[in-house]
Amino acid sequence: MRVRIARGKRIYEGILMPGVTDHLVIKLDNGYNIGLKRDKVEILASWEEKGVNRPPDEKPGYDPSLPDLVILSTGGTIACRVDYRTGAVTSQFTADEILKAIPELKEIANFEAEVVYNILSENMRASYWIELARKTFDKIKKGADGIVITHGTDTLGFTAAALAFMVRTPVPIVLVGSQRSADRPSSDSTMNACCAAKVATSDIAEVVCVMHGSTSDDFCLIHRGVKVRKMHTSRRDAFRSINANPIGRVSYPDLRIEICGPHLKPGDVEPALYDGLEQRCALVKYYPGADPEILDFYREKGYRGIVIEGTGLGHTSKLWFDPIKRLVDEGVVVVMTSQCLYGRVCDRVYDTGRDLLKLGVIEGEDMLPEVALIKLMWVLNREDDPEKVSQLMKTNLVGEITDSTDIFGGF
Amino acid sequence: MRVRIARGKRIYEGILMPGVTDHLVIKLDNGYNIGLKRDKVEILASWEEKGVNRPPDEKPGYDPSLPDLVILSTGGTIACRVDYRTGAVTSQFTADEILKAIPELKEIANFEAEVVYNILSENMRASYWIELARKTFDKIKKGADGIVITHGTDTLGFTAAALAFMVRTPVPIVLVGSQRSADRPSSDSTMNACCAAKVATSDIAEVVCVMHGSTSDDFCLIHRGVKVRKMHTSRRDAFRSINANPIGRVSYPDLRIEICGPHLKPGDVEPALYDGLEQRCALVKYYPGADPEILDFYREKGYRGIVIEGTGLGHTSKLWFDPIKRLVDEGVVVVMTSQCLYGRVCDRVYDTGRDLLKLGVIEGEDMLPEVALIKLMWVLNREDDPEKVSQLMKTNLVGEITDSTDIFGGF
Repeated sequence: MRVRIARGKRIYEGILMPGVTDHLVIKLDNGYNIGLKRDKVEILASWEEKGVNRPPDEKPGYDPSLPDLVILSTGGTIACRVDYRTGAVTSQFTADEILKAIPELKEIANFEAEVVYNILSENMRASYWIELARKTFDKIKKGADGIVITHGTDTLGFTAAALAFMVRTPVPIVLVGSQRSADRPSSDSTMNACCAAKVATSDIAEVVCVMHGSTSDDFCLIHRGVKVRKMHTSRRDAFRSINANPIGRVSYPDLRIEICGPHLKPGDVEPALYDGLEQRCALVKYYPGADPEILDFYREKGYRGIVIEGTGLGHTSKLWFDPIKRLVDEGVVVVMTSQCLYGRVCDRVYDTGRDLLKLGVIEGEDMLPEVALIKLMWVLNREDDPEKVSQLMKTNLVGEITDSTDIFGGF
Repeated sequence: MRVRIARGKRIYEGILMPGVTDHLVIKLDNGYNIGLKRDKVEILASWEEKGVNRPPDEKPGYDPSLPDLVILSTGGTIACRVDYRTGAVTSQFTADEILKAIPELKEIANFEAEVVYNILSENMRASYWIELARKTFDKIKKGADGIVITHGTDTLGFTAAALAFMVRTPVPIVLVGSQRSADRPSSDSTMNACCAAKVATSDIAEVVCVMHGSTSDDFCLIHRGVKVRKMHTSRRDAFRSINANPIGRVSYPDLRIEICGPHLKPGDVEPALYDGLEQRCALVKYYPGADPEILDFYREKGYRGIVIEGTGLGHTSKLWFDPIKRLVDEGVVVVMTSQCLYGRVCDRVYDTGRDLLKLGVIEGEDMLPEVALIKLMWVLNREDDPEKVSQLMKTNLVGEITDSTDIFGGF
């Protein structure tokens, strides 16, 4: 067990030696042992011996009074700069360079930085999500006080949802991106990164996304990872909580966190990694005239789950009923969500919905279509029994289904 | 030629007999002829003899001082009532019954009512849109002062867009629906119908959608048909203008129209019917892990146009590049839109976008994905030359592309 201990104004750090006396014995990093009277000291932190956040002796600027965060970089605009020859934005920064570019971060926490990917996030895929979940959980196990993941904004919401299902976390896992690269005057990199780091030191033990909350540089919103969606191609406040209030906000530049709603705290859930996603799942958008054979295409390819983005309360044309029946008959799980995005699916109101329920379609409640897809990928990886899959899809697991959408939603 | 003529406070209506004297001779509906001195009368209206708005003699309550509207009913909740045995909502009202159920309508206009369909709107399809466009244009040709189309809300936006491309109109074409059936206390049927009828008597010579603008019964919004989207499964103010301001609003119950933005007026465009849609067009949503073979599926089925709902500024995974290239190489038109819905596609910012442009993908500007789909169906029905198709897709035709999205948008 490694500990950080305060005695008066002095901070000591090292390995706590076994033994029960009125003195704690700490083996310092320089090799010497020190004995400190138990009732004169305060234990600031303790973690497993091989903690990732163990500051190497040679690392200057380590501040033992600050939390230890891990910043995992996956690419995206927050790691980009403009190529002024072409006007185009290319991914160039590593996590370490982000830390150098944003010196304010060092006032918030100590960072260990690691590059996991350097991709534009439209190239994310399930196998990357799984790898990222494992990496994240590993850093948590090694004692990180919080994880910051820098990510392209395009699919940041998808990754947040994937991590939320795969990692049950005792510390904050904060995804952050930027809509304008760091060398543009309107860049949101610094503010988003600082707010994200601050949230990563908080007691919000969930997967969240922290991004600009307005078009000004005044606050970021803390969105639950399973309830957030990129809703604008270019605005800095593109991310919105859908069918839920944000968990809170972070004022800038004073980085004060205001909590707006309930959230998990350290200890609320047992830390766990449930890595694995069934990749034979598809999201299919219905629209008038949409070819019903698309459903047969997936069935014939051996897909195990289909999420339909239906109209309104969760509808499709009658012409889709037969191929839906063929899917269900072959054991494919079909979940209905709505392309309205806001609001809850309810297939008990109209004939169409009742017919779909009779066919075996599962109502996706108020889940975003993409979140329902990722949940289905996760559930089907862990469960075969159709009845149990159906039950799990309709049950709130990590905040993806809210009890009452009407009073929430920022619509 | 049928005319309605005022002489002092008396109104006469009948067929204008040929002849050039200082008297107009009108054959009244009771068979008698009447001669009226030309300089003593005012011609209030004139239309083709078999005018749809010709009030049958037996029709009591025809008010010649009011405009003549046609109400076309297609089904949907506005024509529904709750079955209290099951709690379900079924489509039961005809257009005439809607008129009877909402007596306030008769204070706004005279109505001719006709049932075109009686379906839940998720069952709409391109052939129905074409038939509805023809019916609408026919009513306009026959002298209607405005058209009200009652429609299910699920795909109301799709139908509005389809009509906007197919019908160039000198009078308002107003789509209206309701989110709660007429026999529920919270029903929006009456207010929406009255506001829609009022807009149908206005000088907004466009296809618009009129629906609740707030959760109260205080005003409806007038949305441009090519810019509107159902954004909530159940709320009465589910419809939102995306990347555009609403054209205006109608206060309730005083039915005062306030115009918020520019709109076409009678005479601005030549009335025309461009009926026809290429049905071999598809909307495909990209998401991480989306199967690239879905594009080959459409190519092999002989589709002529694909609208991709990409991420962010208009992106897909690199894994989609090859099948996109195969589509373009075979002459299939590929248009990029964004699943963000709000904001404009721009494929010149990131590597991914530039690669897509090189492959021949067309930027869908700030069009909604579903509107881009319907526009592509319309353009491909009229144009074969890929260069011209591309040019038309990037050109604003009926308000579907706005010059500046940032200052608009209600985001």
